Amino acid sequence: MGEANAAPEPLQAICYERGSLRLLDQRKLPLESIYLDIKDSKDGWDAIREMVVRGAPAIAIAAALSLAIEVHNHEFKGTPAEAADFIVKKLEFLVSSRPTAVNLSDAATKLGDLVRKTSETTSEVETVFKAYIEAAEAMLENDVADNKAIGSHGSIFLRKKSEGLKKLCVLTHCNTGSLATAGYGTALGVIRALHAGGYLDKAFCTETRPFNQGSRLTAYELVHDKIPATLVADSAVAALMKSGTVNAVVVGADRIAANGDTANKIGTYSLALCAKHHGVQFYVAAPLTSIDLALSSGQQIVIEERSPKELLNSEGGLGKQVAASGISVWNPAFDVTPASLITAIITEKGVITKTADDAFDIKSFVESTS
Amino acid sequence: MGEANAAPEPLQAICYERGSLRLLDQRKLPLESIYLDIKDSKDGWDAIREMVVRGAPAIAIAAALSLAIEVHNHEFKGTPAEAADFIVKKLEFLVSSRPTAVNLSDAATKLGDLVRKTSETTSEVETVFKAYIEAAEAMLENDVADNKAIGSHGSIFLRKKSEGLKKLCVLTHCNTGSLATAGYGTALGVIRALHAGGYLDKAFCTETRPFNQGSRLTAYELVHDKIPATLVADSAVAALMKSGTVNAVVVGADRIAANGDTANKIGTYSLALCAKHHGVQFYVAAPLTSIDLALSSGQQIVIEERSPKELLNSEGGLGKQVAASGISVWNPAFDVTPASLITAIITEKGVITKTADDAFDIKSFVESTS
Repeated sequence: MGEANAAPEPLQAICYERGSLRLLDQRKLPLESIYLDIKDSKDGWDAIREMVVRGAPAIAIAAALSLAIEVHNHEFKGTPAEAADFIVKKLEFLVSSRPTAVNLSDAATKLGDLVRKTSETTSEVETVFKAYIEAAEAMLENDVADNKAIGSHGSIFLRKKSEGLKKLCVLTHCNTGSLATAGYGTALGVIRALHAGGYLDKAFCTETRPFNQGSRLTAYELVHDKIPATLVADSAVAALMKSGTVNAVVVGADRIAANGDTANKIGTYSLALCAKHHGVQFYVAAPLTSIDLALSSGQQIVIEERSPKELLNSEGGLGKQVAASGISVWNPAFDVTPASLITAIITEKGVITKTADDAFDIKSFVESTS
Repeated sequence: MGEANAAPEPLQAICYERGSLRLLDQRKLPLESIYLDIKDSKDGWDAIREMVVRGAPAIAIAAALSLAIEVHNHEFKGTPAEAADFIVKKLEFLVSSRPTAVNLSDAATKLGDLVRKTSETTSEVETVFKAYIEAAEAMLENDVADNKAIGSHGSIFLRKKSEGLKKLCVLTHCNTGSLATAGYGTALGVIRALHAGGYLDKAFCTETRPFNQGSRLTAYELVHDKIPATLVADSAVAALMKSGTVNAVVVGADRIAANGDTANKIGTYSLALCAKHHGVQFYVAAPLTSIDLALSSGQQIVIEERSPKELLNSEGGLGKQVAASGISVWNPAFDVTPASLITAIITEKGVITKTADDAFDIKSFVESTS
């Protein structure tokens, strides 16, 4: 029967059925598992802004579904065109909860286009609403399928690039797992796939300051799935790599520019520099929706700054004061890792490798797979 | 008159007068200022082990003074040789509280030699004890003088290396200030000296996970001294340097090998890699006592591991659980920064620069200044 690992009951952070949406309050993890009822797009906006839900794909899906609930329960009086307007405005509002997340704005554009188009071909408001709800629901279903594909492509590629090693030690940052997506995960999906195949020696997860997504969420998922794993401080990664025990780094992405520059959780750039110095492979794992071909490079990515409280207080800002009163804080949510530090980009359609001139041709990849 | 900044009332972490020693409990900072009475070497050992007192020079001084209190209050029956034995054994015990701290073992050796020598030339136990107490007290006085010299040498050197800049932005890690030394500080002494001269634009301090010495202690000192300062997460330093706002990094040292490899708080190596990549000068500021010529390189430095609790619980292990139950932790206290990443080493006797072959000749420097 071999040593393949049986998949445990999967975590569900987004619990949805038509007319009902509950989100696992990730601020309470890992100590408490509390689900919040989301009744409309305002609740969805709050949940994203307050980090009840997080992770680029999960944010887009939670936002879309929060509006699906509102639309489902809404008694709307007006024309199909007005119904489409109503939805588009709500989508614009939802996008404002996290402007950096391209998945969210991308999804909003697509959903907006769909309802506009539908409204032009029907005289029934119902039809517009139904089209929206079904499209939002499809996002949820497709995301898990995409993540499993990312995991599979990544696992095969990493093994190919690490010939001679029976099992790999893989380090990841932040949380990109079942708690950040509809399920399975992107970067953590690659780790899950390696583990399921018996090819993972050990996962390392960073603490991921200041909001501790690594120690709270990724560690929680790794323990839950019984994947051998060790937690390290973000600042300990350089020493860990020097000791030779990391074979590859796999991180997620909030936004990938056309040249491969990648915006991701603060600290990713630092990990990439450490990986480069120690000759460790560095991968970005993300769905194609994270790619924004309109951005020629990472310089065009606006970095959101978050509350100083995340550093001033314990528990990522939720606990008691730990830092000295009166100190200024710079707390960027993301940084940009230049493409030059990235070995390859793992997507649901396959792995984007570098061309002969050590650059990514992401546009061609996207066109060839769409 | 100009814009030079008046020095505020200095912080005192080690309050000593003969027969009485109180240590500021740095675990309680920045919210509470509580001093603990130290009555003997056992109290001193506990205070070091439990991080009531921290920082390589402060540890050595607190240890020596804790034994000075014990010796002062001790009714000893025996010969001078037995008195010397008594002191040497206690010193060995104190060294075991923090084996990595070379200042401590160095001080213990010197103090041990002194009492042995004294015991051979006297028939009075009193004389042995008095020699020990006076030597321990001299450590306290000399440390402040040494730190001011480090600050002065560092300030002059950094300005020389940054010609064209009127004021500098300097990043530091961990705490190397009045709270880590007898006063003024080493790396933070350089920042204090730059500020006092009107040459500091701004200080950046890292949070310094997992025990938050930066956000708790360094930020506290910087605010106390009204030095313009900003706190950043350890993982945000790479992005900060990319933005071009850091002119130099100055860190302390727990131990410097003969080739310049430097053991210091975990995360120092990562900062050095980031500095190298961004062309930022990287300095180690430490007294000569931190140099251990018996170590040819950093490979011989044994890295102490600390409790997983520092990552599993908030407030560096003192607060409530934040990480997932059941996760393994790797929590090294220090890392080793190779000499190749260090621009220069700032000591109380002057700045050790690299020779033509891009290496440090620390032995010659030490010999020429002793």
